[in-house]
Amino acid sequence: MSESRVSEIAAPATPDTATPPGMVRLSLAEVHALTRDTLVGAGLAAPHAEAIARSIARAEADECHSHGLYRLIGYVASVRSGKAAREALPVLTRATPAVLRVDARRGFAPLAIETGVPALIEAARTYGIAALAIHDCYHFSALWADIEPAVDAGLAAWCFTVGQCCVAPAGGTKPLLGTNPMAFGWPGPQGSPFIFDFATSAAARGEIELKRRAGASIPEGWAMGPEGEPTTDPARALAGALLPFGGHKGSALSMMVELIAGPLIGDLTSRQALAAENGDGGPPLGGELFIAIDPAVFGADSLAARLAEGDALFAAAREQPGVRLPAERRYKARARGRHGVLVPATLYAELKALGAPT
Amino acid sequence: MSESRVSEIAAPATPDTATPPGMVRLSLAEVHALTRDTLVGAGLAAPHAEAIARSIARAEADECHSHGLYRLIGYVASVRSGKAAREALPVLTRATPAVLRVDARRGFAPLAIETGVPALIEAARTYGIAALAIHDCYHFSALWADIEPAVDAGLAAWCFTVGQCCVAPAGGTKPLLGTNPMAFGWPGPQGSPFIFDFATSAAARGEIELKRRAGASIPEGWAMGPEGEPTTDPARALAGALLPFGGHKGSALSMMVELIAGPLIGDLTSRQALAAENGDGGPPLGGELFIAIDPAVFGADSLAARLAEGDALFAAAREQPGVRLPAERRYKARARGRHGVLVPATLYAELKALGAPT
Repeated sequence: MSESRVSEIAAPATPDTATPPGMVRLSLAEVHALTRDTLVGAGLAAPHAEAIARSIARAEADECHSHGLYRLIGYVASVRSGKAAREALPVLTRATPAVLRVDARRGFAPLAIETGVPALIEAARTYGIAALAIHDCYHFSALWADIEPAVDAGLAAWCFTVGQCCVAPAGGTKPLLGTNPMAFGWPGPQGSPFIFDFATSAAARGEIELKRRAGASIPEGWAMGPEGEPTTDPARALAGALLPFGGHKGSALSMMVELIAGPLIGDLTSRQALAAENGDGGPPLGGELFIAIDPAVFGADSLAARLAEGDALFAAAREQPGVRLPAERRYKARARGRHGVLVPATLYAELKALGAPT
Repeated sequence: MSESRVSEIAAPATPDTATPPGMVRLSLAEVHALTRDTLVGAGLAAPHAEAIARSIARAEADECHSHGLYRLIGYVASVRSGKAAREALPVLTRATPAVLRVDARRGFAPLAIETGVPALIEAARTYGIAALAIHDCYHFSALWADIEPAVDAGLAAWCFTVGQCCVAPAGGTKPLLGTNPMAFGWPGPQGSPFIFDFATSAAARGEIELKRRAGASIPEGWAMGPEGEPTTDPARALAGALLPFGGHKGSALSMMVELIAGPLIGDLTSRQALAAENGDGGPPLGGELFIAIDPAVFGADSLAARLAEGDALFAAAREQPGVRLPAERRYKARARGRHGVLVPATLYAELKALGAPT
């Protein structure tokens, strides 16, 4: 991508289009091109680079910066280290008419997900319920984006993946579980479906990293230090173990994700992935499980009324001051996206340097 | 049941068989007979009474007293009030080969669950994944017991039901959601599978009721008072709203349960159930969703190794002092069960009176 493709807005017409100092404004097409060109330049096959570019552009459009351009650094590291397969294309097979499998062949997840999700949608429509297992992939994207196409197609959908092994079970002090995120989506209201996506750890590891850099402390209940002591010191937390959210209930959910995105589908637990890790800063190896259910199977006639009841529930929740539904912040950001997305100039410079020949 | 069937142990041989003062010791057969006879005496058809008796005896065997004989009071109330159908038998149909439905026809849930779960197990084995929706039932039992037969059959399984409408969404102050429990089970280790079952509210309503009776306060974060103020006063909590566990993440899960056990399957949300409620002290009307996945579908050859990896994960968790896996307490109680179960004498007297002709 040439420098001239970065929008330069000297005198913004509205606050929406103002570019604050230290930031660069990119169109989504520019985010896509920067990602694709950088990855192709690093040696990744074009179909993978395009799928990752779509994934990163969607995250930036929703101002989900943690899964946006920042992730390009890790993707490039795992291309360069040889951890992720550069050329291997994902292969879709059927275990049963209702259970699909995509062998990602040690490639990055986005292309494997794009390969499997349309078949998942079709199988769920045919059988009412269907599952999709992505195997042997490097997953580095946001789960909400993985299920959104199925939710947009009118399905209720879940996905689960095993994260970095740094979480102690409730009551424990040593890492055993991954950050183990899960996502769920429900098809409504139109254009802004109910989708949540959260780590089953109390906080993301990156969040604690940021606190450490800022010299700040972390809240009680997030982590244990290396001696197994409760800590509010982010440095000791990073040397120790994160804790699950919500005590023993969140811990049980984390264990569930570990089991269903690991041994259930024949993929790695987070501690197995850790043992296989080369420490290049990119994503861990593992699998991802999707489940989708077609609400129409429980009565196509009544479907509109049932979706309306869901919408009424969301409306009633919003009537209570202080309640924020999952994904609302992202949809607002998405609506603003026509003016492009803001990227820190330092990150932008780092990414441009990444794309330079080595 | 005649009084003479209650075991009388004057001089216990071991502490395990000692009957503390104020308690009555019943064999599981006696628990079953007391439940069945009381319900039949109240006018419930025998197949329902037998299914509820099996459910209550299993809860008592696991010392899960909140779902044991205590529940008989509510069941009888809903038979007497005419809320629950006395005679209607559940009807099993197939929406697709992989999606089963049981119309409980406004009867109690246990017989409907016993009708549907064997078909769920068979469908999951055939299609790899299957769902079962129980419709229009009065659910008053523990979710772990609902999925245990599927887990014992080697499946990973979930179930979800909408509870009493008394929970505010995170950030809110007014009841909108049910207590919305969910359960998940994983087939291993042999004889003591990993099964968790929890309300998505921070605490059960009954727990707060007990605190009120004891004149105790409740922890911060459990509830809001009627003016929307955070409270540690159980009386104000009961007049206000419970809170979800785990902040916005638990709140999102509660909303998920509300959607998938309600509008997804064509059944009631908790606020719709509240509107239909006659206040007899028995269970609310609603539905229940089951999902089951057969791990063998992801490779029958590798199944033993994958189950062993799950077992290794549980073993590693147990190595950390302070970690308790879900259901362990129940399995220990079940192993002790050969000496019978202890029931408070006051409750026993109340149940005997319930069974007397009115």
